[in-house]
Amino acid sequence: MKKYVVGVDVGGTNIKLGLVHPGGRVMARSHFPTKPLSSSKKQLIAVLAEAIKKIITVNDLKIKDIAGIGIGLPGLIDYPRGRVRFLPNIPGWRNVPLKAILQKKLNLPVFIDNDVTLITLAEWKFGAGRGVEHLICLTLGTGVGSGLILDNRLYRGAANAAGELGHLPLNEQGPACNCGGFGCFETYVGNRRLFALASRIMNKPKMTTQQMFVLANQGHPKALRFWRQVATHIGNGLVGVVNLFNPELIIIGGGVSNNEKFLFPAIRAVIKKRAMSLQAAMVKIRRAKLGDDAGIIGAQVLVDHAKSL
Amino acid sequence: MKKYVVGVDVGGTNIKLGLVHPGGRVMARSHFPTKPLSSSKKQLIAVLAEAIKKIITVNDLKIKDIAGIGIGLPGLIDYPRGRVRFLPNIPGWRNVPLKAILQKKLNLPVFIDNDVTLITLAEWKFGAGRGVEHLICLTLGTGVGSGLILDNRLYRGAANAAGELGHLPLNEQGPACNCGGFGCFETYVGNRRLFALASRIMNKPKMTTQQMFVLANQGHPKALRFWRQVATHIGNGLVGVVNLFNPELIIIGGGVSNNEKFLFPAIRAVIKKRAMSLQAAMVKIRRAKLGDDAGIIGAQVLVDHAKSL
Repeated sequence: MKKYVVGVDVGGTNIKLGLVHPGGRVMARSHFPTKPLSSSKKQLIAVLAEAIKKIITVNDLKIKDIAGIGIGLPGLIDYPRGRVRFLPNIPGWRNVPLKAILQKKLNLPVFIDNDVTLITLAEWKFGAGRGVEHLICLTLGTGVGSGLILDNRLYRGAANAAGELGHLPLNEQGPACNCGGFGCFETYVGNRRLFALASRIMNKPKMTTQQMFVLANQGHPKALRFWRQVATHIGNGLVGVVNLFNPELIIIGGGVSNNEKFLFPAIRAVIKKRAMSLQAAMVKIRRAKLGDDAGIIGAQVLVDHAKSL
Repeated sequence: MKKYVVGVDVGGTNIKLGLVHPGGRVMARSHFPTKPLSSSKKQLIAVLAEAIKKIITVNDLKIKDIAGIGIGLPGLIDYPRGRVRFLPNIPGWRNVPLKAILQKKLNLPVFIDNDVTLITLAEWKFGAGRGVEHLICLTLGTGVGSGLILDNRLYRGAANAAGELGHLPLNEQGPACNCGGFGCFETYVGNRRLFALASRIMNKPKMTTQQMFVLANQGHPKALRFWRQVATHIGNGLVGVVNLFNPELIIIGGGVSNNEKFLFPAIRAVIKKRAMSLQAAMVKIRRAKLGDDAGIIGAQVLVDHAKSL
């Protein structure tokens, strides 16, 4: 009998759970808010363990039907040791041996990793990157991150901290970044900057990227200009990626990537103009396929391929 | 009996040959100029084949003592097919099946690859990167390139064109580059730019980096300022590399890297200030060890590990 995986996607706002079929399909979902619990690590872990047990039992499954638990977290994870190093948006999480704690509570194999890594694994095995051996998966949101599949393997770096594309400098001088650096890609294309840019261009106190998309669809010149600027920054960041990694594919995910129409042709034009010709000619730019389920589906890949990842 | 490799390093000015011991030592050398021959591919290949035969026989070796020939070339190489795609500085070399031609002439296995790849292989197996599993080898010269050792393997990219660190943009706007792009790392730290910057800072028509090194050693404030500027550009380029690859080590080679005293402390300071803290804390910056022999020694690694590279 094929075994299921419980995937967990820990975000700053919600914690989402899914029961994932070996073929990558999410069979059932649940979620609970992170915030009221995040002040106490112990309480959060207890609630998470109960939620994992519950999603198994309410779907008429037993422990023996579960291959393992995969958990994606927004921060630095010591993957081989199963420890959370640091979560920038969930206070108090430093050096937590989460894998060991949950394995004891659940009596099941537990694997923990960075959330963008899980999204990348999902898109590679079940999404926009199926069958591709060299790809970068870029996630655009409040934070900007990426995962790297190089030579048909996940590339983690020396301390599981590779792929910080959000912190590739776009300029030698530039805005201060949360990471302590400046001029980082994220300071140009992270959501905070996009909201500020939209509000400035439209001369209104608050604008969302969704509103800018609607206006662009109506042909509003300022909204079209906004998306051209955003696409140029994204393209400028990806030129370096194309020249350094020589990938076949760049997958772009996260909320903003839904605006494919106003972003992708302009991003492709920047890469064609600025990147080296052989590398630019062969790289494809595709939108992520799995949307909000990607993290949970990636947990299935993590558990299933744990030995080789 | 241990077999030797004939290593060949093809440059725009000279072609250097070396007989390399399996342990990485260069036992004998020869060279001939590229220029007078480079107008005719056929003639250049014939002279190269004779030079290879000669370095074997004058050292009292026979064909059976040779494991193979490794050749590094300054351009795009189709490694699996053994074809030269394009050499920007040696006119007329497009789609040349060099491996097949030389194997027929020499009756020995021949492997051809990019010159920076061979330097990287040499530094990894016999130089500054021995035993390191995640490293970037940066070469500074007229051209700026790099080789990537990721997860203890050479990373080639989808078309053997990865590692073009010289063409990582340092700024969204910037000087035009030979590659067709603009604002590339090479336009800030390539030799042409360094000579021009030195001449401008010193207000003299011609200045070499060697002269600037001598002046800096004498405490000349303008020369010290020159090296600070150069180190800041190099550091700014490496910040992105540190955040993307999370390497243990960056090796810096090429003529300018000899000025370790005026470059390396400032480069390390930029990385510490600007790169992400975990990644910055663990990365070491070291000068390349093998100097001008690196390409020839790398040929030995290429032949010896051909199956896994």
